Amino acid sequence: MEKNIPYKTYLEESEMPKQWYNVRADMKNKPAPLLNPATLKPMTAEELGVVFCDELVQQELNTTDAYIDIPEEIRDFYKMYRPSPLVRAYCLEKALGTPAKIYYKFEGNNTSGSHKLNSAIAQAYYAKKQGLKGVTTETGAGQWGTALSMACAYFGLDCKVFMVKVSYEQKPFRREVMRTYGASVTPSPSETTNVGRKILAEHPGTTGSLGCAISEAVEVAVSSEGYRYVLGSVLNQVLLHQSVIGLESKAAFDKLGVKPDIIIGCAGGGSNLGGLISPFMGEKLRGEADYRIIAVEPASCPSFTRGKYAYDFCDTGMVCPLAKMYTLGSGFIPSANHAGGLRYHGMSSTLSQLYDDKLMEAVSVEQTKVFEAAQQFARIEGILPAPESSHAIRVAIDEALKCKETGEEKTILFGLTGTGYFDMVAYQKFNDGEMSDYIPTDDDLAKGFAGLPKVDL
Amino acid sequence: MEKNIPYKTYLEESEMPKQWYNVRADMKNKPAPLLNPATLKPMTAEELGVVFCDELVQQELNTTDAYIDIPEEIRDFYKMYRPSPLVRAYCLEKALGTPAKIYYKFEGNNTSGSHKLNSAIAQAYYAKKQGLKGVTTETGAGQWGTALSMACAYFGLDCKVFMVKVSYEQKPFRREVMRTYGASVTPSPSETTNVGRKILAEHPGTTGSLGCAISEAVEVAVSSEGYRYVLGSVLNQVLLHQSVIGLESKAAFDKLGVKPDIIIGCAGGGSNLGGLISPFMGEKLRGEADYRIIAVEPASCPSFTRGKYAYDFCDTGMVCPLAKMYTLGSGFIPSANHAGGLRYHGMSSTLSQLYDDKLMEAVSVEQTKVFEAAQQFARIEGILPAPESSHAIRVAIDEALKCKETGEEKTILFGLTGTGYFDMVAYQKFNDGEMSDYIPTDDDLAKGFAGLPKVDL
Repeated sequence: MEKNIPYKTYLEESEMPKQWYNVRADMKNKPAPLLNPATLKPMTAEELGVVFCDELVQQELNTTDAYIDIPEEIRDFYKMYRPSPLVRAYCLEKALGTPAKIYYKFEGNNTSGSHKLNSAIAQAYYAKKQGLKGVTTETGAGQWGTALSMACAYFGLDCKVFMVKVSYEQKPFRREVMRTYGASVTPSPSETTNVGRKILAEHPGTTGSLGCAISEAVEVAVSSEGYRYVLGSVLNQVLLHQSVIGLESKAAFDKLGVKPDIIIGCAGGGSNLGGLISPFMGEKLRGEADYRIIAVEPASCPSFTRGKYAYDFCDTGMVCPLAKMYTLGSGFIPSANHAGGLRYHGMSSTLSQLYDDKLMEAVSVEQTKVFEAAQQFARIEGILPAPESSHAIRVAIDEALKCKETGEEKTILFGLTGTGYFDMVAYQKFNDGEMSDYIPTDDDLAKGFAGLPKVDL
Repeated sequence: MEKNIPYKTYLEESEMPKQWYNVRADMKNKPAPLLNPATLKPMTAEELGVVFCDELVQQELNTTDAYIDIPEEIRDFYKMYRPSPLVRAYCLEKALGTPAKIYYKFEGNNTSGSHKLNSAIAQAYYAKKQGLKGVTTETGAGQWGTALSMACAYFGLDCKVFMVKVSYEQKPFRREVMRTYGASVTPSPSETTNVGRKILAEHPGTTGSLGCAISEAVEVAVSSEGYRYVLGSVLNQVLLHQSVIGLESKAAFDKLGVKPDIIIGCAGGGSNLGGLISPFMGEKLRGEADYRIIAVEPASCPSFTRGKYAYDFCDTGMVCPLAKMYTLGSGFIPSANHAGGLRYHGMSSTLSQLYDDKLMEAVSVEQTKVFEAAQQFARIEGILPAPESSHAIRVAIDEALKCKETGEEKTILFGLTGTGYFDMVAYQKFNDGEMSDYIPTDDDLAKGFAGLPKVDL
């Protein structure tokens, strides 16, 4: 086995990115703008400023500047847990007997357990800079809430997290991590907001959903002096911050003199995938290089592979702007059977446009196959992966096995977004052989699509 | 703030240690040998070989070779999660307003969550090399059991873990991680061993102890064809493997041109502390340099600061050899109130001898103060530390604050042995203000000392 390439490549501190890359600047077809649901006109900076911090609004609307400086305060925080390693999966290659060369960018080596911290610290920084008291947000599995709690603790901001009730109850430890960082955590839907009370009245006993928690967090942000709302995925600003993943990956590959053929990432709202692929996609858009780019989503929540490209609500309460995206409808909720994350009904508009322009592919995978890959990876590479990340592992292994058949020595890069240490309930189900698959029927999907807003532009 | 020193220093793969360092070779007063409890004669290699792998027995008895090669297979595994970073705690220094320079060696960036993997992979390797089917062990908090499960999965060895019953029940997620790696996990005491049945008959309803789980694991190892017992701390061989921590730290400091003044580590059985300090202690023993070395232990289990230096049993069932160590007596069990780890009644004989020779200091700290330091560190440095590691954080902060008073610019190194992601029950107690301190009375200690074996050499 050739080993001139180290197992792990870390950039030097001085080689870390000083600017984020904004892929929209290189897109010929820009992602569709957010719309005001009342007027169906594009949201103005002023309108967005009610919900989001001013500087983040500018980033959200900026489709022209390819590079945006990363403030020194954020770069200093990045230095505490970045650069993340670009890992050559020698042991996995050997176990699979594949001629493929497999690399992964590992974002799980920080207490939030995932890449979410990359955007959380940026959003907290701009909130602090604007002189705000605090921020509100929602969290499902808890990775985003944890990341934001850490970022807010660092900058001394108040942090109010609405946590999907079922996760609040099933993941008390995630909740405790957030509390340790000083955040307040409220199970959603709650009696503390109008939208929460309304949802509870209509659906007594509901265990909540991400869309519903978003509605509550937004309501509190817009009705509280000195607060704004922050979101951990889907938005363009988030993809911008997450570009640090791809930029570091590319810089490390350049140092090694390696060029990937296939780039694979899991996709829920698109924050990890968008960040990982951005500089590579930039080269592709500028005609400088070609890469096969694959989004992996769960078969139980197949926004790309079975969704519609349409304007839709981002939240259940319909208080947020409309976004054009691949979506299953804001009323779509994946089966409770689905333990593997990536449950959001929609998808980043930037990625949606790139997918619609056939610049990337998408595949869906079933959860038992995902956990098989997760277990295999854990035993071979020594990292217990998050269920979300394991979607990418599944497809990376599948592609590597295809190379074994064809004899091709392709170079595969996948994003290992995080660790599964707080997902052991799902692993236990798998270990006990009690995990099954769920694929929505066309009828299930039709119900979600029926709730799409009628937008005629 | 000077920042010519990076936040994190990683060695290159080529700079990683190729040999472990055996501090006993440089000790004038060697640690006392293990004794056969029946004959009170030093255990022979043959006798030890019934319990331990042959090559590990050689390492256990080797007090003369300063350097022992790390086999390539182990170095390859190390490359998957090592080198660990030597971190400059700029943010903590700033928050404390201290002129001290604080560094920590962070061993938590692997799925076992701690430094334990460094010895687990070595012990699994030698078991595999000897052609064994599997190994048995005990685990308390679960870090060692997890590490060993990972190592056994990597080499395809069977792994039987006896987990202290109270942990088995309170930490189902740790158990699931081990199961994910293919280990079998049995709550101890169990009905599967003679010693387990005896303890259950004498103490019905007992929630178990580490000493009791050790007895069960040893019984299964010696009575099963193709099995040996492995232990994650206390033993000389473990300190040898853990020397990789100190060797990497020293190599990184040398690269930076920095020399620490104070070295701080938490001490339960001594594996982390022994590993961290070994090359520095070597310099001290050889008269090449001087360092202030501080062992930190919980006030509720104060082996060094209030224990006796005497021969004692390593386990409750008294099936193991006798070791001379600072001990509270094998019958001593810390209050159930104590959540902060480091509960073992004894201490590595190597460290005990060094302490007795006044080559290092020891302090004990109360658990609420430890968790205050843990929370402060988490919020400032972004890593949620293990309760065990937080003992070292506590004293590092205290020493840095002393520097603030005196104006001394001391360089402090402490070992951050792991993360607290599976310790959120303890953090919850702290967050809820329900944590209190426990310090054993002299009478409590007298009961433990009364059980010390009468050894007259």
